[in-house]
Amino acid sequence: MRKKHIDIGIAILGCGTVGGATALALIKDKELLLEKTGLSLNLKYIVDKNFDNAVKLGLNKKLFETKLGVVLNDPDISIIVELVGGLSVAKDFIEKALLAKKHVVTANKALLAHAGPALLSLARKNHVTLAFEASCGGGIPIIRALCDGLIANRIDALYGIVNGTCNYILTQMIDKGQSYKDALAGAQAGGLAEANPGLDVSGMDSAHKLAILASLAFGQKINLEAIPVTGIDCLQSMDVEFGCRLGYVVKLLAVASRLENGLALRVHPAFISREHPLAWVSGPFNAISVYGHKTGHTMYYGRGAGGSPTASAIVSDIVSCALGTQRLLFKNLGIWSDKTKKAKQLPFGETVSRFYLRFMVNDTAGVLAKITASLGKNGISIASVLQKEIPEESGRQRGKVPVVIVTHSAKEKNVRKALGALRAARVVVEDPVCLNIVDECKD
Amino acid sequence: MRKKHIDIGIAILGCGTVGGATALALIKDKELLLEKTGLSLNLKYIVDKNFDNAVKLGLNKKLFETKLGVVLNDPDISIIVELVGGLSVAKDFIEKALLAKKHVVTANKALLAHAGPALLSLARKNHVTLAFEASCGGGIPIIRALCDGLIANRIDALYGIVNGTCNYILTQMIDKGQSYKDALAGAQAGGLAEANPGLDVSGMDSAHKLAILASLAFGQKINLEAIPVTGIDCLQSMDVEFGCRLGYVVKLLAVASRLENGLALRVHPAFISREHPLAWVSGPFNAISVYGHKTGHTMYYGRGAGGSPTASAIVSDIVSCALGTQRLLFKNLGIWSDKTKKAKQLPFGETVSRFYLRFMVNDTAGVLAKITASLGKNGISIASVLQKEIPEESGRQRGKVPVVIVTHSAKEKNVRKALGALRAARVVVEDPVCLNIVDECKD
Repeated sequence: MRKKHIDIGIAILGCGTVGGATALALIKDKELLLEKTGLSLNLKYIVDKNFDNAVKLGLNKKLFETKLGVVLNDPDISIIVELVGGLSVAKDFIEKALLAKKHVVTANKALLAHAGPALLSLARKNHVTLAFEASCGGGIPIIRALCDGLIANRIDALYGIVNGTCNYILTQMIDKGQSYKDALAGAQAGGLAEANPGLDVSGMDSAHKLAILASLAFGQKINLEAIPVTGIDCLQSMDVEFGCRLGYVVKLLAVASRLENGLALRVHPAFISREHPLAWVSGPFNAISVYGHKTGHTMYYGRGAGGSPTASAIVSDIVSCALGTQRLLFKNLGIWSDKTKKAKQLPFGETVSRFYLRFMVNDTAGVLAKITASLGKNGISIASVLQKEIPEESGRQRGKVPVVIVTHSAKEKNVRKALGALRAARVVVEDPVCLNIVDECKD
Repeated sequence: MRKKHIDIGIAILGCGTVGGATALALIKDKELLLEKTGLSLNLKYIVDKNFDNAVKLGLNKKLFETKLGVVLNDPDISIIVELVGGLSVAKDFIEKALLAKKHVVTANKALLAHAGPALLSLARKNHVTLAFEASCGGGIPIIRALCDGLIANRIDALYGIVNGTCNYILTQMIDKGQSYKDALAGAQAGGLAEANPGLDVSGMDSAHKLAILASLAFGQKINLEAIPVTGIDCLQSMDVEFGCRLGYVVKLLAVASRLENGLALRVHPAFISREHPLAWVSGPFNAISVYGHKTGHTMYYGRGAGGSPTASAIVSDIVSCALGTQRLLFKNLGIWSDKTKKAKQLPFGETVSRFYLRFMVNDTAGVLAKITASLGKNGISIASVLQKEIPEESGRQRGKVPVVIVTHSAKEKNVRKALGALRAARVVVEDPVCLNIVDECKD
C-alpha cells in the first residue's frame, strides 16, 4: 500500500539552458522523483517573455505564462525557481516571490554575491527558504557539504576551480600548447565559452562563487568588491610552458584562507604542484578543496555548469524545500544571516606564498645580479632560476630573453615592491609576470 | 540578543580511537558547534568496560559509565553514538537504544552491511533515526551526497576507493616498487594498518562499505554475501609494474554498476587509466566516484579513516538528528527501507570489461599462438601483447617468462573459461593473473 503523495506546485522563471533543463528534469523524471522522495513535483508554470527555447524543447504550451503576478497569486505554487539571471530583474522577482511566502530556489551567483544576506534575511522574515545549491559548482553538492556535511569543522581554507570555461581553456593551453586566443576560440566553437566570455575569463564569475562559498565556509559576510580578481585573459603560453617544466600546472583558483589577522580571499591564475588533487581537474570540470580542522583535506569534483548538472542541484533544492529540511537548516544554522559579522578581508599584499616570476631582459652581463639584488633587498629569497636560450631563428627580438625565478615563501607586497623597483630602474624590458604558487596543504 | 540554546544530551558507547576523538570533538568544540548550530551538545556519558584510552585522553571521569541501562533510562539523553564495533554486542546495544526511543549514530559498517534494513526498520517503528555518515569514507559526506545532494539522479555507477589501508599499501607498491609484504609491514609500522589487517586487505571492509553505498545509490536491498570480493593480499609487484608501463595504476575498487539485467557489484584490485580521477587518489585517502544520469561524473575525496575525520562525520549526524533534518529525510525518503526490493545481483561472470592477463610460460615456440587461440575461441579479442625479456642473471628460472595481454571488452565468464582451458592444457606454468581494467566513464 503506497502512502499518499505530497503535491508540490512549482514555477520556473526563465526558460534558457538551465530553465529548460530543469523543466525537462521535473517532467521526465516525475516518476523517479516520486519513487525516491514520495513527492509529486508538479511544474505548473514557466514564466518568460520568449518561449522559443521552451517550444524547441517540446514543453507543453499550457505551462507558458508571461505574468509573474499569476504565479504569485496561485496558492498551489509553493516553490519558485529563479533562472532569469542578472541582477535587477532577478532581484525584483525573488523579492516578490519571498514576500508572497514562496520558497525560492536560484542559481543566480552574481545576485547572491551582491545581495545574499539581504535576500536571505527577507526569506527568513517571511518564514520561507532561499536555496542556492545550483549557484556554485553545478551538479556538485558543495553548498550542502559546507552547511551540513562539514558542520563539525572550523574551515581553514578553501581552494576552488569553479569556472569550467576557464579550466577548459587552460587545459587546452597546457595539453596542446595553444595560445590563450586560440584556446578561447576553440572553447567558443565547442559551446564551452560564450560569445562574450568577459564574465568568465575576467575571473568575476569565480569571484561571485567565492563570495558565496566563503560566506558559508567562514560564517562571515564577504564584501565582493574587496576580493582581488585577476582573470586568465592576460596569461601567456610561455608561462604555462615554463610552469609545466617546473612541475606545475596553471589553474584559475578562487582561494579563501583563514589567516591570523583575517581572511585572505582572491581569484587569480596560479601554479599548483602536479601532486595536488586540484592539478588533476581538467577540461570543463570543477572542483573545490576544503580544509576543515577535523576532516583535513576533502575535495568535491564534478561538472560545474551545463543544463543537466545544474538542474540536478536545483531539483535537490526543490526536494529539500518540499521536505522541510532546508527550512530547518536555514532556520537553525543561520546560514549567511545578515546578523553574521563582516569578514576582515586582508589586502592583496598580505598573502604569503611562493611566487613564479618571469622577467624579460636584454641578454647583457649583470642583469641577473640586478634582479636578485632587488629581490634580496626586499627580503625575498630565491629557490630556483631558469634561463631559457632563445634560438636566433625565432621571431623574438634578438637579445631579449626570459629569466624565470621561483621564490621561497614571501609576502606578496614585498614581491610587488621589488618588481616595481626593477621596472622603474628599466632592468626589465616588459612588465614582469608574477604568479602565486599554491602548495599542497600538508594536512 | 542571543536566542535560547537547545540542549542535546549525548552518550558515546565505546571509547576507542573514534569514540575518544568524538568525545574530544564534542567537548573541545562545544562553543564552535554552539555558534554554528545553536545547539548545546552535552556529552553526558561514555559507556565502556575499560577507560584506559579515555583516561589517556584526559576525559573527565564523571562521564564514565559501565551500565548501558543508566543511559537508556536517562530522559536527558536523546542521542546515542554506537562506536563499540563488531556485530553482536553492537547490534544488541543499537536495538536497545532504538527501543528506548533514542536516536542512534553509528560508524559500524560491518553491522550495517549485515543488518542495515532490519535496524533502520526498527528505528522507523520507534520514530527515531539511525544515522551512519561515518560508516563510509570517514570525513567525506558521501552518505549525504547519495541521499540528499544527488537525489535528482538515477545513479548508474559508483566506483569507490574506500579502504585507506589498502590504498596506502598499493601506493607504496606503485611509487616505491615495494612488494606487498614490505608495503604492509611499512603500513603497520606507521599505524596505517592493524596488526591483524585481514578485514582490510581481504577486501571485506570495502565490501561492507559497498553494500551500504550501493543500497543508498540504487535504493535496493543488497546481499553482502553475494558480492564477489578479492583482496590485495595476492597482488604481485610484477603486475603493478606491468600496469604502470601500460599506463594504469592498480587500486582496490568497490564497484557497483547498473546493467540492463541487474546490478553488478564487486570488490577487487583493478587497473585504472592514469587519466581517471580515481587514479590520483594516493596514500591513505579515499574517494568515491558517482555517476548520475543528470550530474554525470562527480567525485568525493578525503580521509577515509582516523579519529578526527570520522568524528567530523559523527558530529554532523548528531547535529542533523538534533535539528530534525535526519528525521525528515529518513521518514520521507525511505532510506534503505526494509520495504525496498531486493537487488538482482549479477554473478561475477556477467561483467563486461577489458582485462589485463599475465601468463607465465616456458619460452618455447608456439606458446603465444596457443594462448591467443584459446582466447579467440572464447570470443576475446586482444588489444596488445607485452612480452618482457628476463635477463639471465635474474633469479627467475631460466626460460620462464611472463606474457602480458590486454584484451578488448569481454565478458568475464568467457575470459575465465579461456584461462581454465589454458591451465588444463598446461600451456601456462602458473595460475594466470587476471585483473579488470576500469575505463573512464565517458560522461
